[in-house]
Amino acid sequence: MDSLQEVCEKVLALINPSKEEVDKVGRLVEALKAKALEEALKLGLEADPQVYGSFAKGTWLSGEADIDLFLRVPAHITRQEMAQKSLKIGEAVVEALGGHWIKRFAEHPYVEGWVDGIRVNIVPCFRVERGFWLSAADRSPFHTEYVMARLKEDGKSQVRLLKRFMKGIGVYGADIKTGGFSGYLCELLILRYGGFKEVLEAARSWRRGFIIDLEGYYKGRESDARKIFPEPLIVVDPVDERRNVASAVSLHRLGEFMAAAGLFLDRPSMRFFYPPPRIPLALDDFSSALSKRGTCWILILFAPLEVVPDVLWGQMYSSLRAISKFLRNQGFNVLREAAWSDEGRLNAFLLELDSRTLPKAKLHLGPPITSKESNAFLTKYLKNEDTISGPWIHGNRWVVLLKRRRIDAVEMLREVFKTKDIGIRSKIAEAMNRHLEILVDGEIAKAYSRSEGLATFLMDFLIGRPPWLWEG
Amino acid sequence: MDSLQEVCEKVLALINPSKEEVDKVGRLVEALKAKALEEALKLGLEADPQVYGSFAKGTWLSGEADIDLFLRVPAHITRQEMAQKSLKIGEAVVEALGGHWIKRFAEHPYVEGWVDGIRVNIVPCFRVERGFWLSAADRSPFHTEYVMARLKEDGKSQVRLLKRFMKGIGVYGADIKTGGFSGYLCELLILRYGGFKEVLEAARSWRRGFIIDLEGYYKGRESDARKIFPEPLIVVDPVDERRNVASAVSLHRLGEFMAAAGLFLDRPSMRFFYPPPRIPLALDDFSSALSKRGTCWILILFAPLEVVPDVLWGQMYSSLRAISKFLRNQGFNVLREAAWSDEGRLNAFLLELDSRTLPKAKLHLGPPITSKESNAFLTKYLKNEDTISGPWIHGNRWVVLLKRRRIDAVEMLREVFKTKDIGIRSKIAEAMNRHLEILVDGEIAKAYSRSEGLATFLMDFLIGRPPWLWEG
Repeated sequence: MDSLQEVCEKVLALINPSKEEVDKVGRLVEALKAKALEEALKLGLEADPQVYGSFAKGTWLSGEADIDLFLRVPAHITRQEMAQKSLKIGEAVVEALGGHWIKRFAEHPYVEGWVDGIRVNIVPCFRVERGFWLSAADRSPFHTEYVMARLKEDGKSQVRLLKRFMKGIGVYGADIKTGGFSGYLCELLILRYGGFKEVLEAARSWRRGFIIDLEGYYKGRESDARKIFPEPLIVVDPVDERRNVASAVSLHRLGEFMAAAGLFLDRPSMRFFYPPPRIPLALDDFSSALSKRGTCWILILFAPLEVVPDVLWGQMYSSLRAISKFLRNQGFNVLREAAWSDEGRLNAFLLELDSRTLPKAKLHLGPPITSKESNAFLTKYLKNEDTISGPWIHGNRWVVLLKRRRIDAVEMLREVFKTKDIGIRSKIAEAMNRHLEILVDGEIAKAYSRSEGLATFLMDFLIGRPPWLWEG
Repeated sequence: MDSLQEVCEKVLALINPSKEEVDKVGRLVEALKAKALEEALKLGLEADPQVYGSFAKGTWLSGEADIDLFLRVPAHITRQEMAQKSLKIGEAVVEALGGHWIKRFAEHPYVEGWVDGIRVNIVPCFRVERGFWLSAADRSPFHTEYVMARLKEDGKSQVRLLKRFMKGIGVYGADIKTGGFSGYLCELLILRYGGFKEVLEAARSWRRGFIIDLEGYYKGRESDARKIFPEPLIVVDPVDERRNVASAVSLHRLGEFMAAAGLFLDRPSMRFFYPPPRIPLALDDFSSALSKRGTCWILILFAPLEVVPDVLWGQMYSSLRAISKFLRNQGFNVLREAAWSDEGRLNAFLLELDSRTLPKAKLHLGPPITSKESNAFLTKYLKNEDTISGPWIHGNRWVVLLKRRRIDAVEMLREVFKTKDIGIRSKIAEAMNRHLEILVDGEIAKAYSRSEGLATFLMDFLIGRPPWLWEG
């Protein structure tokens, strides 16, 4: 076993950019800024092109440079003018440098381009005083300034290590799909604890509602902070005390990070930074593993949605929770559920139940014996073809043993998907109207070979264990 | 439908003893007292034979006279002398009047005899001042005196109606098996509310912890009374403020009484006083009804116990609860359970589950990810032949999907009955060691014809509905 220091050194050799790479990206940055200024002048937009984000702060990973070019416009410009003109500038800049681009949507539309294999986001924002935010992107210059003023040279490597670790264990990214840690959050964690190892050590003893408040805005008022920020981890933004930098971090991802931190400190390994790829089993082996489990798998496949990833994943997760809740309310024991999408052609929900069918009978709790509803209950169930036994009295309530009319989870799902009035979100419901397949247990083999991404997802679910979890 | 008054009149004609019956029992009482005094003198015991209880108070039901002959001895007599001599007196008295007797046990042994078809209990007690009780029976003279001084002639009929109603719906008797209402309690209820109908009307709106306190001992201190008496119904004894006359009444019986009271007031019927006998189905019909239910019945038959009924039923109920709890802890859904005994030859537990088997897999919740036990948990389950999937993280805890080694309720019961260390009480465990049979579903037909009492019990369980519940 390598020591922690040895592992970190190996990783740093892979992620710290070489002088050549820094120079190359630097030259591109200068060209982008110059061209953007030129285009802004052409359009008569008083824009100040600046690069913020990980490139400016020197915390990007080798091979993964991401240039965030901000077009900072005066606050008196209208949103419409800002949006339209910055889109035109972005398109022209990328094309002039021989790249290609697509239009993306966040709060405003913006340009995501690729130039020489490097991703470039060209994003408009307003030049405002701190606290007088007009758009979400207005904070970025302040974030960059805050970090640059405080992060030393070694700190940058420490941020890189933390980012790579988080990427390796799958908790990096504040997008809806991931629900994890942003780059800025990594930087603040390093500023708070001093280094990568120290962040991991601290994370071992975080508790739900843990507060990191670099500027002490909530000093002595921690309970106020917990009321304002309901999220499991609270990192108060040094440039905006009303914002939780960790608001995207889900309880699940927080838990994975904390657990991985502890395991890595106990047994350092490259696996945490670079997880071994999960190689799907041959179809026969997969089928045989599935049939041996003794549980029930339900795979719901449906048509793609024409929406940006954050909307897709927001609707996916929320609809999956609704389906799971529906099954639980019916009496099923849902062991696990997961969503998958290739963000283009195919979407899937996967649910594992301990049994496909419910017992044929169930207790039905009636009203308190002294309540006004007693008579209606007795009238209903004394002569009811679904009554198996009773009514009798248990404690102070009537109880009756009833026949369950429907006991098959798949049948119930097929039926409920006709109306989808159980909380399936609109875009998902539309997609299901276009195409919907429900496969159970052995039938899932049919879909296994349809897409490598889907096969990997099914394998992940089969194993159910994060790849960074040690094997012995 | 008869009116309430009509029904009550019909019942009263059946339960109010005729003059001939009163005279006959009265003559027996005089003979018993005279003979008891004679025997006491012979033994040199200063005993004052008196009849208390329902005969003295005139609240007994025609055909069900019960004579409670108390031998009241001075407080300076030792318990041993009192017990030995009163037994001898009891035996001699019953034999002299041509009856037969057996020795019974309560706080002391006493004689239960039958003379001319009338049951006679000959019980010793101490002559004490109120409050200075030396034995449980010492309160009886005071109870009788209290009721006799207050209950008018019409009140006696009202008590009889209430007793017959309670017998009809199966809630009469403060013994452990019944867990219901004593005769004295019926008398106090009539004193409190004035009449049979008024008691039923009041009972409709009783709540758990309802207090009846004729002498106002706890006036303004009702919460004290609820602390002292944890039982669902509190009726403070007018002759002893530290005693709850309703302490035997279980929540279940209280609920049955309240529900039956409401239904009877809404639709008066003789059925509440004289339930139609439940006629067991033919074996084939029973078997077919059982197999159509879709649930699982487990009938546990075991050898008789050589104990008095209160000990028998105390151990029966407590052991049945333990078995039920064991199955629930294993993951089974126990729908109902019931105990049966003929108090002589055969005892039975009956459990109904919604399924005989558990699913083959179960989620096992591990320790919080940040706890010290995490490593032990991971070491145990990462390479475990029972691990189907995981461990993964859910919320802040480790979870793993495990194979269940044992899934059959009957097998698990057979195994656990070998040691019985799940809370099976000592006498039941001994009886099971002598003879134990576990029958499931179709096998239960074998026992159905073995005893009419058992068949009726199985029928009651099959129907699951009290006989007084209206049918339409």
